[in-house]
Amino acid sequence: MRKFSSATTLLNKSRFVPTSGSYPQGYNVGAIATGVKKADALDLSVLSSTVPASAAAVFTTNKVFAAPVQVSRDVLSKTGGKDIGAIVMNSGCANAVTGEGGLKDARTMVSQVSHDLGIAPESALVMSTGVIGQRLQIDKITKGITELTSSKLGSSHNHWLECAKGIMTTDTFPKLVSKSFEFDGVKYSMAGLSKGAGMICPNMATLLGFFVTDAPITPSALNKMLKYTVDRSFNCIAVDTDMSTNDTIAAMANGAAGGETITEDHKNFEAFQAEMLAFARELAQLVVRDGEGATKFITLNIKDAATYQDAKQVANSIANSSLFKTAMYGKDANWGRILCATGYSGVDVDPFKISVALSSAAGEVQLLSNGEPVALDEAKAAVILEEEDLNIELSLGTGGGQECQFWTCDLSHEYVTVNGSYRS
Amino acid sequence: MRKFSSATTLLNKSRFVPTSGSYPQGYNVGAIATGVKKADALDLSVLSSTVPASAAAVFTTNKVFAAPVQVSRDVLSKTGGKDIGAIVMNSGCANAVTGEGGLKDARTMVSQVSHDLGIAPESALVMSTGVIGQRLQIDKITKGITELTSSKLGSSHNHWLECAKGIMTTDTFPKLVSKSFEFDGVKYSMAGLSKGAGMICPNMATLLGFFVTDAPITPSALNKMLKYTVDRSFNCIAVDTDMSTNDTIAAMANGAAGGETITEDHKNFEAFQAEMLAFARELAQLVVRDGEGATKFITLNIKDAATYQDAKQVANSIANSSLFKTAMYGKDANWGRILCATGYSGVDVDPFKISVALSSAAGEVQLLSNGEPVALDEAKAAVILEEEDLNIELSLGTGGGQECQFWTCDLSHEYVTVNGSYRS
Repeated sequence: MRKFSSATTLLNKSRFVPTSGSYPQGYNVGAIATGVKKADALDLSVLSSTVPASAAAVFTTNKVFAAPVQVSRDVLSKTGGKDIGAIVMNSGCANAVTGEGGLKDARTMVSQVSHDLGIAPESALVMSTGVIGQRLQIDKITKGITELTSSKLGSSHNHWLECAKGIMTTDTFPKLVSKSFEFDGVKYSMAGLSKGAGMICPNMATLLGFFVTDAPITPSALNKMLKYTVDRSFNCIAVDTDMSTNDTIAAMANGAAGGETITEDHKNFEAFQAEMLAFARELAQLVVRDGEGATKFITLNIKDAATYQDAKQVANSIANSSLFKTAMYGKDANWGRILCATGYSGVDVDPFKISVALSSAAGEVQLLSNGEPVALDEAKAAVILEEEDLNIELSLGTGGGQECQFWTCDLSHEYVTVNGSYRS
Repeated sequence: MRKFSSATTLLNKSRFVPTSGSYPQGYNVGAIATGVKKADALDLSVLSSTVPASAAAVFTTNKVFAAPVQVSRDVLSKTGGKDIGAIVMNSGCANAVTGEGGLKDARTMVSQVSHDLGIAPESALVMSTGVIGQRLQIDKITKGITELTSSKLGSSHNHWLECAKGIMTTDTFPKLVSKSFEFDGVKYSMAGLSKGAGMICPNMATLLGFFVTDAPITPSALNKMLKYTVDRSFNCIAVDTDMSTNDTIAAMANGAAGGETITEDHKNFEAFQAEMLAFARELAQLVVRDGEGATKFITLNIKDAATYQDAKQVANSIANSSLFKTAMYGKDANWGRILCATGYSGVDVDPFKISVALSSAAGEVQLLSNGEPVALDEAKAAVILEEEDLNIELSLGTGGGQECQFWTCDLSHEYVTVNGSYRS
């Protein structure tokens, strides 16, 4: 039996935490410890916009959705995504499966933050993450909102980092990305953060997170951009097969940087959307980097599919195969499991046209060529598999030429440990 | 962080291995070590019927199916399931994704066993299990078939036990069940065996196995019974989310015990089918008992669904949730994960009508009642969760009254160890 001593050592992930940033104008952020989480950990975060902003969000498709999902949907529905002023987020308790009382608590979070920031009533979004089925300690939360908004919000790098820390659950590092770019001589910035280490599964908004910009974008243009972007970023990652009750990704655009307002027909719409997609992919990949117990970061390149959806479905099937994921953890070039997961993906594949290659910074080996196994150089494969970052390229050989990139991690002993004792 | 020392100790499963049996007449079985597996382990099994028998089989729905699946399908298609004389099975190599050469090897196994037993050419079924993508060492296999069929087959309990051992891969114990029952004054017996510890997933024939009887049953009646039976037994178990390339469950009926031939219209058809279902469930549950790394045996009772399919789909979703399975391993009554998996099952559920209870030999606790959490007695839950056998009862509250029983196991550190080093 192989030994796992080296693989089970947690990787040093501090390199993924930025030490500085380029943040959008007109936002103040921060976090506070309310006592919902143990040991004075940050568990409440707020983002406020100094001017009313456009907002959009995508939510879990789980039929059992949490109270904050319902309440944020209501806010966006009533406002049409116009004049939103804040996002309030808590960790430690998901406020999910909490009945009418839970809905009241989520509404209280929105009204409290709106009141304390002096923005229009019910002009804030709300997100929660943590244990399901327990009521929020709402008194601690409202007290925390008042304290946080009165004196602890700011726009420094450290404020942003704390804001990201305030929504962590089993995350081992805060996920924060920022960047700047220019259109028509105006410099715009974008910043975003996310949480999520387990329960990451595709085909929906997959975790808590937001990205905000100081560009002026209409609510409908922002909504269209967000959906396109999430479908190709947060919906193209998988940590495990579970889909949370609380998943929410929100976007805000407050226009503080000036310039022409971007509508769906604006000449810069697609270019801005491309910037947002690159940004969202970077943020989504951090979630995979921090997959519960992950020791490998795996990029799946599914090529030559008949359609983009087919390519994504095959990627999704492989990324969610426990057998594939444990093989990667065990540094085992067991490509049979890749083929197997391709075969049960539901896509009509021809096994005799499939080719598979494995690569990393240490080299590349062909594993399968048009359905026929290639004699495997096990020594070379072993060296490739020692790397943290691995690439699997699988061609379906349909002649259709469509492709999808997808990111996933391995399944380790540590995943079992983390999830076997989550409430302890 | 909770300690897992007791949970990771493998359970003693020898109590599931019978010490005697009641075997059907007219079958000889056995196994031999051909050297395909290491350390002289049994790796080739044969069942032969002394008289031509009816046969039926269900196979994997994976698009990447193995050579023996194709060849067994061909045999059944050509013969119509009539006059089948044997089943030959090997372990250690799955003969999957092996191209034209693999098909030739599987056909060689069929022709060799048919020749050596003196039965009609191509009147045997073939099954393989083990690593994907490697060619069979066919010379060792054919030599083994000749040696096994010439002198090592028999009908004793020990022969049956060895036959079951010959198809084990990561199984920790041989899975063998036998029983007798009577219709119209005639005593019939049924025996079966199976393998499969990982890659067990529902909605198809889920592993290697067969059950054979000495009752006289027509091929079409046997085929109908087998499909009904497998849908409610082997398709109602889940160990992990993977679906193998090789899954095959076969049935044979040789009529050696005499009595009236059972057709689809015979008065005893349904009663016999019920016997077969009870038998198949017992055999299928052994697969879950031996789930890779399993420390818990979990029965899911999904009640009051609109349809049987809905109930099964919800059960399947829960049984395949890594988060639910790790919680059971960690003895954590984290029912939020049960609700969560119900919500993303694809069934249109109403969260406010769902009720959930947990029970074992140590007692019962209600966890959720019509969507509202019940104050949990954690001490009582902890005692219940100490048991190996756990029951989850989940009512969807639709008023439809349909239900499904489903069996699964937990996800443990040992699962990761076993599957991270399978080829080592």
